Amino acid sequence: MSSADLPHVVIVGGGFAGLWATRALARERVRITLIDRRNHHLFQPLLYQVATAGLSAPDIAAPLRHILRRQRNVEIRLGEVVGIDADAQAVTLGDDGQVGYDYLLLASGATHAYFGHDAWAAHAPGLKSLDDALGIRRRLLIAFERAEAADDPDERAAWLNFAIVGGGPTGVELAGTLAEIARHTLKDEFRRIDPAEARVRLVEAGPRVLASFPPELSGDARRKLEKLGVEVVTGQPVEAIDDAGYVLAGERVRARTVLWAAGVAASPLGALLGAPRDRAGRVRVEADLSVPGRPDVFVAGDLASVEQDGRPVPGVAPAAKQMGAHVARAIRARLAGRTPPAFRYRDMGNLATIGRMAAVVDLHGFKLKGMLAWWFWLWVHVLFLIGFRNRLLVLINWAWAYWSYQRHARIIFGRPDSDDPGP
Amino acid sequence: MSSADLPHVVIVGGGFAGLWATRALARERVRITLIDRRNHHLFQPLLYQVATAGLSAPDIAAPLRHILRRQRNVEIRLGEVVGIDADAQAVTLGDDGQVGYDYLLLASGATHAYFGHDAWAAHAPGLKSLDDALGIRRRLLIAFERAEAADDPDERAAWLNFAIVGGGPTGVELAGTLAEIARHTLKDEFRRIDPAEARVRLVEAGPRVLASFPPELSGDARRKLEKLGVEVVTGQPVEAIDDAGYVLAGERVRARTVLWAAGVAASPLGALLGAPRDRAGRVRVEADLSVPGRPDVFVAGDLASVEQDGRPVPGVAPAAKQMGAHVARAIRARLAGRTPPAFRYRDMGNLATIGRMAAVVDLHGFKLKGMLAWWFWLWVHVLFLIGFRNRLLVLINWAWAYWSYQRHARIIFGRPDSDDPGP
Repeated sequence: MSSADLPHVVIVGGGFAGLWATRALARERVRITLIDRRNHHLFQPLLYQVATAGLSAPDIAAPLRHILRRQRNVEIRLGEVVGIDADAQAVTLGDDGQVGYDYLLLASGATHAYFGHDAWAAHAPGLKSLDDALGIRRRLLIAFERAEAADDPDERAAWLNFAIVGGGPTGVELAGTLAEIARHTLKDEFRRIDPAEARVRLVEAGPRVLASFPPELSGDARRKLEKLGVEVVTGQPVEAIDDAGYVLAGERVRARTVLWAAGVAASPLGALLGAPRDRAGRVRVEADLSVPGRPDVFVAGDLASVEQDGRPVPGVAPAAKQMGAHVARAIRARLAGRTPPAFRYRDMGNLATIGRMAAVVDLHGFKLKGMLAWWFWLWVHVLFLIGFRNRLLVLINWAWAYWSYQRHARIIFGRPDSDDPGP
Repeated sequence: MSSADLPHVVIVGGGFAGLWATRALARERVRITLIDRRNHHLFQPLLYQVATAGLSAPDIAAPLRHILRRQRNVEIRLGEVVGIDADAQAVTLGDDGQVGYDYLLLASGATHAYFGHDAWAAHAPGLKSLDDALGIRRRLLIAFERAEAADDPDERAAWLNFAIVGGGPTGVELAGTLAEIARHTLKDEFRRIDPAEARVRLVEAGPRVLASFPPELSGDARRKLEKLGVEVVTGQPVEAIDDAGYVLAGERVRARTVLWAAGVAASPLGALLGAPRDRAGRVRVEADLSVPGRPDVFVAGDLASVEQDGRPVPGVAPAAKQMGAHVARAIRARLAGRTPPAFRYRDMGNLATIGRMAAVVDLHGFKLKGMLAWWFWLWVHVLFLIGFRNRLLVLINWAWAYWSYQRHARIIFGRPDSDDPGP
């Protein structure tokens, strides 16, 4: 039979879940259409390094077409899905194109959640895409420039006041790196301000940072952050964020730079399915990751709400990869007339980095912290970067950055005299 | 005397001329204010590599504050000069700040010139800044995506039709690299189009490409370009450029991507001086590079119109560096009550690259071409890159790119479904 007659698998999203599903179907007699809004796969765990100017954007992204160039059963389509007609088995793209499918995998990931405070988004950007990262980088670099140019001491202080909302791994990484930049990277570069006077505050509503880790490691992370100069506030939710600053415990703080690392919500594509969803908007899937009543539609990655042994499967890269590979197995089973197996998440452990040579690692109760944890963290992250070139260059960039305290990507794109935060 | 009493040197522009002048004044008892719209010095000779996704933007740019962090007599100000009052010895910045000076150096460089066809600018972007380079990169990558998605064969052909206007070094570099991308880099990545069918046309109004080189090397460059698959048209000026394509020799050609490498004009800051200027808007300076009647105001780099032995000093990086260093000497002479010497340009030779392992080099009649010229070109460019890290990483990036034909920075920022050409 010709390739046009093969079963058509449509995969929406080229992140970890979508890409792993695509690759796992390489030898299958199917034709695959991979749809993404972006032309690249992004190694999200290192996105904070782009935001803090340690890595260039292309260091952690690779063109999807390049990754999949040898997989002849895949066609890549750059576009945005705006509609899903599950009865007609078709998705609609933003340019009005229709793509029919025999099997559909939705793996469009997550976006920022402001818990009903959508107005905060303009003042406290989150970190999910390369554009977000370049926008945050721009804000951080411009804040120090504005502080240097300010004549009014209050205005100067507001530009040197940084707050990161959310004490999960991303918030901890951003706060630790920002404190390092202020104290080391920018040393000697300004004449009117001392960048080391910057106030970096990490605000967490819950009782401790890195809540998904054992309390002992949370405590260690907090101490490391404080040693780097970060002011850690726990048990206090931010009450308001606007152009001039934020409100915490009833007190208004003037700060020109507030970053959001507090919440994620599932991509809006889940709502197009009409399937039951959890509070964060994730689609509640069956044991085989298919949508209830739609055995030809699957959801994987951050968009899927999966419970295992009474606990939610976390929104981390290894879980997304495992789900993607599982959906490939499930489709293979359906094509062979078998019942797909249930998905089982294999928890590989949990790791987060804090800053220069410090990290925490929790491998099923085996805990690491400090420099050893950091080396483990580095090894795992470089190992999992896609593409040899990136791995090697990221290692060299890092070696140089750690040796010299330098962050080579401190380039402001666009007009720095405009306050437009766009990349 | 306190540092505030020292003579104040204001330098506008952190390119080759401004940066070299700043550095040459490091040991002088002056205070320097360096004003630039951007936070970085840019290694312009490699800008075409960023535009064609071979290098990341931070590979060829370094923060001015970082370069000058140890030079304590410099203060850097991020801002745009919008006015010059030479009688009052002050420049006005875009944020309404006034900066008084004892000596002023204007080194704000050049911008694109469309020879009276300003409407062409929107359809045929030029390459002067990192933002320009990222915008061109985006256009090139999106063109292949649109061609892949197009159902109409005419539309597809229009997206695969590239024209570069101007056969100087930048035009030759862009055309050669684009042909390589189409024939090698994108091989196997598309399913509906063959990128090698892209038509890359280099259009030069004059009789030959690389007109500043001896005819023999121009001929060699042309043959190399044709071997790479570039269609070289000489002796034909482009008659019109619009959204749908361009007109050449009375014939309308449908092309969605036209790049402009045909003309430069001096930065508009020269006009603020009220001094005599040449046709390209460059300031006609005295022998010591000062402005006629203003011994305290100097102009250097692409903004200065300098003749030597009846021929204009070319707008290349070595000339800008030499002028910058000369202005430092002239200021030193004035401070010591001496008459500044006249500027003499030392012509170091002329080089241009064509593509993979091909270049032309003209060193005062000693000519090189082919692979040997390319190695010479590479060595000179890496040697002159500012900052050790960049040099090493640019070499590694290039080694990998040449070995694998890969260009790692093929990342489209922003929404690829929008035709907004901004970076």
